[in-house]
This record gives sequence, C-alpha cells and structure tokens, in this order.
Amino acid sequence: MKLLKETLELITHRNYEAEKSAMKRIDSLAKPIGSLGTLESIAARMAGITGKTNNRISKRNIIVMCADNGVVEEGVSTCPKNFAATLTENVTCNSTGVTVLSEFTGTNVTVVDIGVDAVFNNPSIINKKIDMGTKNILKGPAMTYGQAVSAIEAGIEIVDDLCTKGYDIFGTGEMGIGNTTTSAAVLSVLSGLSPDVTTGKGAGLTEEQYENKKRVIKKAIDLNAPDSGDPVDVISKVGGYDIAGMCGCFLGAAKNKKPIVIDGFISSAAALCAVRLNENVRDYLFPSHLSDEPGSVYMMKEIGLEPMLNLHMRLGEGSGCPLAFQIIDSALYVMEKMPTFGEASLSSDAYVDIR
Amino acid sequence: MKLLKETLELITHRNYEAEKSAMKRIDSLAKPIGSLGTLESIAARMAGITGKTNNRISKRNIIVMCADNGVVEEGVSTCPKNFAATLTENVTCNSTGVTVLSEFTGTNVTVVDIGVDAVFNNPSIINKKIDMGTKNILKGPAMTYGQAVSAIEAGIEIVDDLCTKGYDIFGTGEMGIGNTTTSAAVLSVLSGLSPDVTTGKGAGLTEEQYENKKRVIKKAIDLNAPDSGDPVDVISKVGGYDIAGMCGCFLGAAKNKKPIVIDGFISSAAALCAVRLNENVRDYLFPSHLSDEPGSVYMMKEIGLEPMLNLHMRLGEGSGCPLAFQIIDSALYVMEKMPTFGEASLSSDAYVDIR
Repeated sequence: MKLLKETLELITHRNYEAEKSAMKRIDSLAKPIGSLGTLESIAARMAGITGKTNNRISKRNIIVMCADNGVVEEGVSTCPKNFAATLTENVTCNSTGVTVLSEFTGTNVTVVDIGVDAVFNNPSIINKKIDMGTKNILKGPAMTYGQAVSAIEAGIEIVDDLCTKGYDIFGTGEMGIGNTTTSAAVLSVLSGLSPDVTTGKGAGLTEEQYENKKRVIKKAIDLNAPDSGDPVDVISKVGGYDIAGMCGCFLGAAKNKKPIVIDGFISSAAALCAVRLNENVRDYLFPSHLSDEPGSVYMMKEIGLEPMLNLHMRLGEGSGCPLAFQIIDSALYVMEKMPTFGEASLSSDAYVDIR
Repeated sequence: MKLLKETLELITHRNYEAEKSAMKRIDSLAKPIGSLGTLESIAARMAGITGKTNNRISKRNIIVMCADNGVVEEGVSTCPKNFAATLTENVTCNSTGVTVLSEFTGTNVTVVDIGVDAVFNNPSIINKKIDMGTKNILKGPAMTYGQAVSAIEAGIEIVDDLCTKGYDIFGTGEMGIGNTTTSAAVLSVLSGLSPDVTTGKGAGLTEEQYENKKRVIKKAIDLNAPDSGDPVDVISKVGGYDIAGMCGCFLGAAKNKKPIVIDGFISSAAALCAVRLNENVRDYLFPSHLSDEPGSVYMMKEIGLEPMLNLHMRLGEGSGCPLAFQIIDSALYVMEKMPTFGEASLSSDAYVDIR
C-alpha cells in the first residue's frame, strides 16, 4: 500500500508554463494556426510533460500484462483457458501482433506475468505473479483488496524500473482471456452505464454467448457490489490482474513524468481506473485507436480523451501503441523542424486565427 | 481529350482473386479473424492492386498541385492572392508541413505548377501551367471544358512519368488559396447537398466572411449550372486547376495499378470527381485522415471510404499522406511477418470467426 500511496501523492499535472511556451512557438510556424490539429496538441502536451519545447521519443517500451480470469468458467470467451499462457510465451518470441508491430517501429516489449495460471520457465517473462489467475467473479470478488493493491504496485515498479533505463515513452497492452468481460464490468461500475452498452462480443461470441456475457457482468456487479468511488475496490471485485497491472503502469508513468499510450478496450479500462485514482494522470495519457469493442466510445468519454486512429482493431496486446508512436514521433518532428513565418518568408497576417 | 479517354478505358478494378488469396493468408495468422481491422483490409486491398500477396511501399511520392483561384476576388479567403506562389516555392525548399513530414517518412515530393498566377524560375517546379489561375466563378466558368481536360491530363502525365521511376505509392496534395470554396462547390454539385453543409471556414474566416462564402458558392452554382453527371463539366464550371490535376493523378494511379492516398478536403473533392469518371478508381484509393473541414464527412460518404486517422488537420498540402504511408507500411509489414496459427503453435479453433 505504501508504494501506491506515495505514487498517488507524487503525481502532479503537466508543466503548463512549458506547454504554453511550446504552443507559442507552434503558433509561429508557417501554417494557419491550429491547422495541424492533434499533431500540434501532441507536441504541446509533450512539452508540458517533459518541460522542454522540443522532444523526441527514441526509446519506446510496451508493457504487456498477462493474466488469467476466473470468470472464463462462465463461458464468456471462446478461447480455451490455457491460451493466455501460450500467448504470453509467444510475445517473447516475436510471434504476436504487438511484437511484429513493435519490431517495425523500433519498440521494445516487456512481458509481465502478473497472474497467469501457469508457471513459466522463460527469462524473458518478468515474474510479478500475484496469483494463478483471478477467482470467478460470479462467485465472489476477483481478488482481495490487498491483491489489487499489490498488482497495481507491480505495474508501478515495472515503470519505475524502465524509467531508470531511459525510456522516453510507454505503451500498455495485455494478454488475458476473458478480459473484455472484466473491462466492461469495470466500465459499467465507474460510469454507471448498463452492461448492455458497455459489453461487446470480444474475440468472437455468438448472440447467445453474448447475452450470457452481459448477464454474467450484471450478476457479478450485483453480487460483489463494488464501491464506484474506489477504483481499487472495483478492480478487486470485478476486474483482473492485467487491468490492475496496467493501472499501475499509468500511475507510474505519470509519477515519472513520462508519456504513456493507451491501447484498446482493456488498456483504457485500466487508464480510467488510474484517472479516477488521480485526475492528473490524464495529463500523461495518449490514446491510440478507437477499438471496435463497442464500450470503447464510452470509455474514451469517461477518460475525456479522443483517439488518433480509427482502424477497427480489437486485438489488444498493446497492438495500437506502435502505430500511435509513429504519429507522436511525426508530430514531434514536424513541430521541431517546420520553419516559422519569418524563416519561410511569409507574413503571419496571411492566416487568421480562428480558434 | 485522347489521353483522358484512353485512361478511363484502361482503368479496371483490383485483382479480386489475388485479394481473396491474400485474405486467406491473413485469416490464417495467429489472431482472431478480423481483429487487426483496417490493417488487414489495407494489406488485402494492396494485394488486389499489385496482384502479389506481400507488398511494401518503399518508394513514395506526394504530388502537390499548385494553382490560383479567381474566386478569391470575392473575399472567400483571408490569404493574400500572391500567397500560392510563395507557398509553391516553399514546398521546393522543405519549408512546409508536407515536406517536413515527407522528409521524416522517406517520401519524395513532386511540385507542379498547374495554374499559379506567377512565373517560376525554379527547376524543382514542374511546369504544367494551363493558365494564370482560374476565372472568378461568380462571373462565369472557372475555365473552359478543354482547359479542364488538359489539367486532368497533366495529372495523368505526371503519374505516368513517376510510375516509370518505380514509385510504389502516391499521395496527393495542393497549394491554392480559395480552394476550400471550389471543393465545397464541387461537392455540392456532385452530392446534391446544400453549400450550407458542404462549406467550412477554410484557413480562417469570420462568421460574416463565412456567410459570404456560402452565398458565393450558391450563386456560382446557379450561374454556371454545372452538369452533375459530368465531373469534367463540374470542374470546369466551379472547380480549379488543382482539383483537376489531382483528379488526373487519381485516374493515372488507377490506370497504372498503383495505390494513391487522399489527403484532406480538396484532395477528396478531386478523388470524388475521379470516382465519378470511373467507379473502379475507388479500388486504388486510400483515404488518410478526416479533415476538420466540415464537408469532409460528406465527401468521404460520397466516395464510400473511411479515413484511418482522426487528427483534426486542415492544412492541406498533402500533409496527411505521409502519416497514412506509415500506417499502410505497418499494415503490410505485420501481415507479412506475423506467424500463422501453425507457426505460432496455436489452434485456430481458439478464435471464432465473427465476421
């Protein structure tokens, strides 16, 4: 509990002075004010995060939190239970969507076992196992409050450690069968929205299985009665170790004043928990894509950010992060290298500020 | 007229057999079917375009069509008239948004004077000038029908020439004051939508100037009565040389079976004209971002494609294309390099097809 408490106390908002000064420079560039849209706000936010006007993201790391979910017993997923273990191994040998995209974009991947129901003998998997998967949320809480805290703290520790290695930006991803169920449950509790709108078909359910999934989520919320004012309680009652671990990553990045990218539905559930634990976390978040999982729209609304990409992806793993890194990198480059009006021999009167 | 006629006759749809075979491979990759969304359809479409399952886009070129518009006399833009000439020069010395982003993404830029009201002494600007800008569409047609054909053919010639140089993909952009006005006019005629919804504030208009802009577009359409069934007539009556030239680029790319990326509002007006001239052109188009210009949503609907990026950009110049190249490149890479279920030691039964 100590690390979580300390971390929450240390998270402050971005340096808005540095951001304002970066925005002033951006407005002096040879283009109509605001015409590069989100590319401009990315560069300005990054200045607020680092305190420097110009930034690059050369060293990148995507943290993949791997865990099993007891609720899979209830038929909420079409994937076999032992799948998470195999997929976790696969991340370490570049056999998954996230690793191939990471390779292409010069990104390192950190694989964390935070609660897989298997014992690994693989030095590339960081062992932060809290338990052999969560309990079935239809029979009681997913984990104890203490376990939720430990899992969040494991995420903080991972980021703390990676920060000492000089990473400029982080991404978040997961491997965990049944985690669209837990994410929809977390979203429903934190937003007050019915599971009817927060729940999707995950990796592929029939209509009947989909109805069952919604029923399971409703029942689990009723049974466990999570306290919507305490995200740790919500995670412990209806969440998962992957969500908890990623929540810790968001908190850790914010504490260390490092930008961190949200991937899809599950990653954004963790981001929402982190923002609810400390509103300032939002200042360090960059959403990547709008997942095809229907609850994602509500998740983004609750977090209060808008994704850059619209690619109908629903793979998870952190696969949207490398694509977002490319956009962020381009934004930082163009804002640093574009000439000002003076340098481009143009009059700034030519364009009128319409913001 | 001969080149345009020949080109339109030579444009065929993609190779759907090659596309189907690529899709079969994509479906065998170690992920739930369809879970990489648009990345999958990009790779499949590209296979249909080239006839090969695996593709890369190593050589990239963005063609920037530069032209003046007579309608600027009517106060539809806040930019001074001589601005297009200066901006055209600036593209050749890497002083614009599109060139900086192109440099970052290993993209060449081809600058074409297709109707700027200035004489250039710059070997980096290709001279395809049809006239010293268009006429004021509030006083008559922008250009003659023959001039519209010549401008479209200039675009075809540019792409024909670049294809002999081995480019894998093209992007389209423009420099031209007043061209959100002409684009909104073209969209209104081709869609039947009122200028009240197709018109935006461009690079920055006051409410009063905005009302004037909409009035100008309505009047110009009434006065010139373009034939909505003939995109060449529409371009000649209320369009511009930049729109005509880019329309030619889209036709040329489709004829040469090369992918071509749409940038923002003006580029998409040209793409819509090209699709109306030959429906098969759509098969070669990749939209990049949804421009912040309000008519863009309708433009994309008319073209029948969905952009990948949502970045609130409204700079034009082709600035969205380098960002789209990165996404396309990533899509091609991941689809080529991801292992199949067999290679990743996973059972494909694990995921259920929900498409």
